[in-house]
Amino acid sequence: MSLLFAAPGWDEGPWRNRFAALLPGRALVTPEKLVDRAAVRYAIVWRCPRGLLAELPQLEAIFSLGAGVDAILSDSNLPDVPIARIVDPDLTARMSEWVVLHCLMHLRQARRYERQQRERIWADDHDQPAAADLRVGVLGLGELGRDAARKLAALGFQVAAWSASAKTAPGVACFDGPAGLEAMLARSDVLVALLPLTAATRGFLNARLFARLARDGRLGGPILINAGRGGLQVEADIVAALDSGALKGASLDVFETEPLPQDSPLWRHPAVFVTPHNAAISHPDAVARAIAAQILAHERGEPLRNVVDRSRGY
Amino acid sequence: MSLLFAAPGWDEGPWRNRFAALLPGRALVTPEKLVDRAAVRYAIVWRCPRGLLAELPQLEAIFSLGAGVDAILSDSNLPDVPIARIVDPDLTARMSEWVVLHCLMHLRQARRYERQQRERIWADDHDQPAAADLRVGVLGLGELGRDAARKLAALGFQVAAWSASAKTAPGVACFDGPAGLEAMLARSDVLVALLPLTAATRGFLNARLFARLARDGRLGGPILINAGRGGLQVEADIVAALDSGALKGASLDVFETEPLPQDSPLWRHPAVFVTPHNAAISHPDAVARAIAAQILAHERGEPLRNVVDRSRGY
Repeated sequence: MSLLFAAPGWDEGPWRNRFAALLPGRALVTPEKLVDRAAVRYAIVWRCPRGLLAELPQLEAIFSLGAGVDAILSDSNLPDVPIARIVDPDLTARMSEWVVLHCLMHLRQARRYERQQRERIWADDHDQPAAADLRVGVLGLGELGRDAARKLAALGFQVAAWSASAKTAPGVACFDGPAGLEAMLARSDVLVALLPLTAATRGFLNARLFARLARDGRLGGPILINAGRGGLQVEADIVAALDSGALKGASLDVFETEPLPQDSPLWRHPAVFVTPHNAAISHPDAVARAIAAQILAHERGEPLRNVVDRSRGY
Repeated sequence: MSLLFAAPGWDEGPWRNRFAALLPGRALVTPEKLVDRAAVRYAIVWRCPRGLLAELPQLEAIFSLGAGVDAILSDSNLPDVPIARIVDPDLTARMSEWVVLHCLMHLRQARRYERQQRERIWADDHDQPAAADLRVGVLGLGELGRDAARKLAALGFQVAAWSASAKTAPGVACFDGPAGLEAMLARSDVLVALLPLTAATRGFLNARLFARLARDGRLGGPILINAGRGGLQVEADIVAALDSGALKGASLDVFETEPLPQDSPLWRHPAVFVTPHNAAISHPDAVARAIAAQILAHERGEPLRNVVDRSRGY
């Protein structure tokens, strides 16, 4: 009985070590070395080659190595076995670190002070707003959105969150549905996108949405922060909005094409922070532990947790 | 009856407006326009000209516009009236924003990704530690230290704090006294200084102290973060420690001489973040409200709060 580890471009070494320790006696195979397809019970994947999973007759479950499962679901030849999202406190905490960092960098004008330091300029902003002056709107109230919202609220930001279906979160003004979206956007100085990528959310972050954000906030215009999925955003609209002032700034960890192409204007835009899709890395220690725990529970006859609803797309 | 507003270099306009609204009927005078010295009951000061306060025969109290009172206490001709520190939730929250921002910038390698963005390099760090991997030690458990420690803990950092006398804070490992200092330094990957400046703390952040910080942490060496007072630090020692590797990085908002001299190597050090003593600005709205409330309470016969202990120095 073996585990397929299909994550092209990733260094498999640390994963092999972790799974060997956590699930002794089971071979970990990669797609290139896969010979005995019938031996594979579990697939652990990130950007798995399409069609490969359908060739595994004894496959019992698919485990995603990242929070997003859109790439898995885009495989038109996907076998009918459960797909489990990774929900791991380490991954969630890392995402919140990145979101809080970027909210604070925009609030506290990190790029201005970085430039001033390079130029040895000692000058401050006598009208620096506080976190309590800023309204942050979080799109998505799954594990990631909920944790980020809570931590932003702890720092004093006025936090609201929106999800497709009604949810609640302590200390967070919660909105849902189309009318709720409108209301939340209208009170958001900073918009944080932590939505799953589905047919309904592809291209969600576009010019029409930016036009609905608050314009009366303390930063002089709305800020877009996307740590969700690149497919959520229309980059041409982001660039145009930054140039027109419809957006005042952005922090983007994900992009329509990754790596971000060399000719993208986002690299050099003075109001944009670009990070290389590393807001929340899947650390082998934490993620392998979570997946191994799921496999062992499944083999004890317990139900898998965090199973994807294919009709919903996440 | 008048209020003396002595804060050389500050724009007095916003303060005049706030105090006029909060304490109607009392004139706000600046040192240059001060004629009737006997009319001054309260002095509201930041870097007040030395000797000036002693010339006010009816002075009842001195209010500091900033959290540090060392400049007031350095006036050898200080009248024997109570000095009240500013303790204001807005000021405290702003300080914590800056401290959390800088802890996260070091954790998440903000300068590396800023440089990579400038050079259009898409590359991440496969061994990025999480906040939970870092031990932050906060020096000082007054209002500022306590709030920063709490917010750092909420983000997942392992937080300890040290104060001269024994104190407690929820979720924070608390140390005190000389042995406690040694123990806290030995478990600190990031050291955050939020101490008052007194005879006992002047030059506290020096080479001997840096040598006692943890060297087995995930960042490859200790980080110094000083948002307290410039007099706490020995800048020559900081530069030498950064060059030798005894310190891996630093964030400094305060300096021995401010503005930071043009020829300071700190401006251009690649591992140093310099900000212009604006970690926690005293916002007229919040600070004037706090001072006016103290004056009104004093006039109702209530005791002043946050009165400085001159023997202790804060």
